[in-house]
Amino acid sequence: MKVTDLVKRLLVGRKLASAQLGETLLPKRIALPVFASDALSSVAYAPDEILLTLSLAGMAALSFSWEIAMAVAVVMLIVVMSYRQTVHAYPSGGGDYEVATVNLGPTAGLTVASALLVDYVLTVAVSVSSGIQNAKAMIPFLQGNEGIAAAVVILLLMAMNLRGVRESGALFAIPTYGFMIAVLGMTGWGLFRIFVLGEPLMAPTADLEIAPAPGYETFSGILVIVLLARAFSSGCAALTGVEAISNGVPAFRKPKSRNAAATLALLGGISITMLAGIVALANLTGLKLIDETGGSYFVQDGVPVDVPHETAMGQLARTVFDNFQLGFVVVIIATMVILFLAANTAFNGFPVLGSILARDGFLPRALHTRGDRLAYSNGIIALAVAAIALVLAFNASVTALIQLYVVGVFVSFTVSQLGMMRHWTRHLRTERDPRHRGRMIRSRAINAVGLTATGVVLVIVLASKFIYGAYLAVAAMAVMFIVMRSIRTHYDRVSREVAVSATDARMLPSRVRAVVLVSEVNKPTMRAVNFARATRASTIEAVTVAVDEDEVRRIVQEWEAQDVGVPLKVIASPYREVVEPFLNYVRGLRSDNPRDVVCVYIPEYIVGHWWEQLLHNQTGLILKARLNFMQGVMTTSVPYQLASSRYAIARAKRDSPAAWRHSGQGDVRMGQALDGRKRE
Amino acid sequence: MKVTDLVKRLLVGRKLASAQLGETLLPKRIALPVFASDALSSVAYAPDEILLTLSLAGMAALSFSWEIAMAVAVVMLIVVMSYRQTVHAYPSGGGDYEVATVNLGPTAGLTVASALLVDYVLTVAVSVSSGIQNAKAMIPFLQGNEGIAAAVVILLLMAMNLRGVRESGALFAIPTYGFMIAVLGMTGWGLFRIFVLGEPLMAPTADLEIAPAPGYETFSGILVIVLLARAFSSGCAALTGVEAISNGVPAFRKPKSRNAAATLALLGGISITMLAGIVALANLTGLKLIDETGGSYFVQDGVPVDVPHETAMGQLARTVFDNFQLGFVVVIIATMVILFLAANTAFNGFPVLGSILARDGFLPRALHTRGDRLAYSNGIIALAVAAIALVLAFNASVTALIQLYVVGVFVSFTVSQLGMMRHWTRHLRTERDPRHRGRMIRSRAINAVGLTATGVVLVIVLASKFIYGAYLAVAAMAVMFIVMRSIRTHYDRVSREVAVSATDARMLPSRVRAVVLVSEVNKPTMRAVNFARATRASTIEAVTVAVDEDEVRRIVQEWEAQDVGVPLKVIASPYREVVEPFLNYVRGLRSDNPRDVVCVYIPEYIVGHWWEQLLHNQTGLILKARLNFMQGVMTTSVPYQLASSRYAIARAKRDSPAAWRHSGQGDVRMGQALDGRKRE
Repeated sequence: MKVTDLVKRLLVGRKLASAQLGETLLPKRIALPVFASDALSSVAYAPDEILLTLSLAGMAALSFSWEIAMAVAVVMLIVVMSYRQTVHAYPSGGGDYEVATVNLGPTAGLTVASALLVDYVLTVAVSVSSGIQNAKAMIPFLQGNEGIAAAVVILLLMAMNLRGVRESGALFAIPTYGFMIAVLGMTGWGLFRIFVLGEPLMAPTADLEIAPAPGYETFSGILVIVLLARAFSSGCAALTGVEAISNGVPAFRKPKSRNAAATLALLGGISITMLAGIVALANLTGLKLIDETGGSYFVQDGVPVDVPHETAMGQLARTVFDNFQLGFVVVIIATMVILFLAANTAFNGFPVLGSILARDGFLPRALHTRGDRLAYSNGIIALAVAAIALVLAFNASVTALIQLYVVGVFVSFTVSQLGMMRHWTRHLRTERDPRHRGRMIRSRAINAVGLTATGVVLVIVLASKFIYGAYLAVAAMAVMFIVMRSIRTHYDRVSREVAVSATDARMLPSRVRAVVLVSEVNKPTMRAVNFARATRASTIEAVTVAVDEDEVRRIVQEWEAQDVGVPLKVIASPYREVVEPFLNYVRGLRSDNPRDVVCVYIPEYIVGHWWEQLLHNQTGLILKARLNFMQGVMTTSVPYQLASSRYAIARAKRDSPAAWRHSGQGDVRMGQALDGRKRE
Repeated sequence: MKVTDLVKRLLVGRKLASAQLGETLLPKRIALPVFASDALSSVAYAPDEILLTLSLAGMAALSFSWEIAMAVAVVMLIVVMSYRQTVHAYPSGGGDYEVATVNLGPTAGLTVASALLVDYVLTVAVSVSSGIQNAKAMIPFLQGNEGIAAAVVILLLMAMNLRGVRESGALFAIPTYGFMIAVLGMTGWGLFRIFVLGEPLMAPTADLEIAPAPGYETFSGILVIVLLARAFSSGCAALTGVEAISNGVPAFRKPKSRNAAATLALLGGISITMLAGIVALANLTGLKLIDETGGSYFVQDGVPVDVPHETAMGQLARTVFDNFQLGFVVVIIATMVILFLAANTAFNGFPVLGSILARDGFLPRALHTRGDRLAYSNGIIALAVAAIALVLAFNASVTALIQLYVVGVFVSFTVSQLGMMRHWTRHLRTERDPRHRGRMIRSRAINAVGLTATGVVLVIVLASKFIYGAYLAVAAMAVMFIVMRSIRTHYDRVSREVAVSATDARMLPSRVRAVVLVSEVNKPTMRAVNFARATRASTIEAVTVAVDEDEVRRIVQEWEAQDVGVPLKVIASPYREVVEPFLNYVRGLRSDNPRDVVCVYIPEYIVGHWWEQLLHNQTGLILKARLNFMQGVMTTSVPYQLASSRYAIARAKRDSPAAWRHSGQGDVRMGQALDGRKRE
């Protein structure tokens, strides 16, 4: 625990209670790293994907990397400008789900939610995989074990998050700024060496040639367009995470919207600079990558050679810092850390979205109201399991995973932009102030451009990647959509069914008949009888089922010896069963007195270990489950805490001291709250 | 369902309710097939195991099969005579477990029980495997798929037994007598053809030679003794199931003990005759078997040949009925059916023993009292899972499984005989009538012989089979012993902890404070409030946790609109949790009023499908689990049956119409019972 605490402290900073978090508004310089790790980290793999996709067509296609990077940068610019409108329109930090739901209705909202849920899973899988691929430059041992290594990292992230790590601003800054400085420093120094010092920097793969994949030899016709589209689609992975700031507006210092918009612009600028810098440096140093999943390969002097795969970041760091080992190490570590941090961000975002969806009835409502810890645990575990399945299935190959990735992001972008257009149109209907109207019309125009751009990209992504894996992402979204839709339908149906009518409050049963289940004469039974007597029911009787003649005789004797003051009835059980004869007895009570309710008291043994649970209360559990189906019958558990139950309490205290401390605080707050808010 | 009913009807006859079963006492001619299928069926594989074990030493050893069969027959005779004493001494049908417990204490009893539980599993595995091996003579397709085929048969037996098949005498008779007639008819006709008609009957393997396994070539010294011991041990599988009659004495017609003893003698005689007949015929027809697990193989003209394995029963039937195909088919089917019937017997015996062990506190007590159906289901599933694991692990090889088998039987025999000796010694201490004393001394002498014989066999079995697989059986017994011992220790500890003291009946809480958990204002909540009001607690209040400001405002408004008549308290939840703030509130109530008890009313949604369960009641479940650990707090579930709950009821009625019919009967009986036995 001490070590994980240290790791936590180093990675994400001191834990903040949510109440504190509410008070701590972020200045731009802190907000940027908090919300930008996901968006920035994607420049660690987007250039790779552009280069290696182009490699399928051999050397001739590589020169297009520059144009494609420019196209990605243009889309990035448009998306950033579009989201600046969202930030102004929704200072509450609604995010794409809210924008879509409010403006386009729940179906659109649910579409966005499905896309985002799938996207979170892929963010974790892709980010961690890319972190592992980059780490290979320093730790060759990882070669061949990428899937396992990625799974282990995801498990660690899961464990950290299960223990209750929350995002906190201050120490987020170090890895994010570290990455920015490392990458911008590397590109700057590299360009300086090439253009000012005139050194001929050569990437490790500069001397190699690339043989095109079968079918691409001619580099002409429709195939080239398809290939360029694929390379562009993969490069668009650089845009993932841009939307994060629009969710975080409430955390900014005032003026919130303006600060958020400024930060968004800053983020866009830095992203584009980093992307352009890496692609430029790759072109200048003759860096080459091959698509191991697609079939292009390296050739030297006409002979195929086998070169271990190294990421663009790794090769560039090695080249630029060829005489400065520390620089190389810093770039690799900074890249790895920000990628894991991006994955960690998903571990925070996924349960939050899940909780919002639960609030709206699209996921089990308990996830919303059950209290943060449990809801988050379920979300964190679900996310980790799905991401681990992906990295193991694809052996942590970023190139394979990226085929699934970008679809979700652009579904969300596109629907959200459409929502923003509706938003402005709606507001224009009522707005009369011509200055405001002018600004709205301008905003709507920007969102229209955004909608067009993201829509076109979505179509390109779907068309160019569908058969390569995007269909899996689409299928996963469809499944999520249908499941969440069904849950909501169920809740709506139940809600109609249980809506109060005028008479409900006055349907008071005339009397309560208490029945205490007796299977032994012991302390738990006595406690159940005494509790039942304390409730002053109209009638009260103890009931035992005669499974064994000798046993029942002994029980009756002991009962009489105890002088309990409550009659003990013995029910015959010709088939040596307990449940059915007891149920029949209760049924009889009910049908003889239809206006009364029956309350069955069941003594329960409370134990400390799960296996002890198997040895007790089983009959009671079954009885309760069956009684639940009878009208007008309630069941009361009267717990008797066995000595071993203190183990469970001690274990709970040890495992989550925070929850127990915090329940102490809760006492005080509750008292205050009750004083101030009591309504009677 | 219709087909399985038909199969049931054919295999085990019309279902009898346990009450009817009690009235139907069995004449000897019915009792024999009911209790003997296990013991008789073992002659289907015991001769094979003798022959193929001997084959390890090549041709020279085969002639010993006769001596070994004789030795097995002698042990059988002794065991039958010994159990005749048990039948007279324990007319209640105690069985080995009771004999050991009563005379030697619970540790010995538990040893026997562990042995018997393991033995039941092996009975299923060995019988079904042997059935499959025999079926191969008719269905060559099974070759290579034995493990799967055996697993399927076990699953079918499980399904049949889960649907509630009970043993019943009448139709048991057909397969058992069928098997007896088929085998005795086959040996008789075979011997008639050889000795009277003088035909030279030759088994299919008569022309083959057997090459010994490596190491056995010389056929001399210690190895031969070890081999003969192994062959004898395997042959002793013929004795399994002999003890069954001693469990069934109460089911015999009067004079019960004498009839049971007579049946036992009959069973012994028939078993020995069948065993001797098969071994004789095998010797006369030159039948040979090889041990495929041990390395002996067939040779023809000096060249190894590959002959598909066929059981002795299959080969003999083929030989004796070489001109009468129907005879061959009848023998194989009769063998197969009785073997499956023997396995079915274990499916009845295992849950019964489990129920007795549960009664004595060695297994979860719920298995005894919970009502037959559920207890039996658990036992049946456990048995099937264990047996399936065995047949798959050993690919339904009887030769491999038999190494594990006989240990348990002889542990049980030996301990039981020791118990019988103690029984007679104890009774001799008080018995004065010299005629009775004489009979007792004679009985004790017989049991002493039995103890010696079974003890010696046990040592031989352990020594000759330990490394070949018996160690697995011993380990399984040890594990069962330790687990059951621990369960008993736990129950004893709990029982001491909860024993009533003089003051327990008078520890009446002064008042009950009712708290109704409110998360919505709807029918279930209203019902919970109304039920709580009907109990007339000292104080009653509704409590809701303010997770969401808007929501709580709405709830309060709806509450006031309903004019419920009970105050609604709102508890602040700074961390958006429900559980902890609520627990703290209850804690506060308790510590402010330490002499009162708190009763928490939780509205529950009752639904019809398991997945709906995931969408409701989760918060309530967690609250209940946590409240259970608080002293002086009881929880009352107030169920609200949603429309979908009728599916669950309909499903229960469809799946077990018997249970519902029988609950109808229960009503009547209960009424009678209450009239006659009400104690107040």
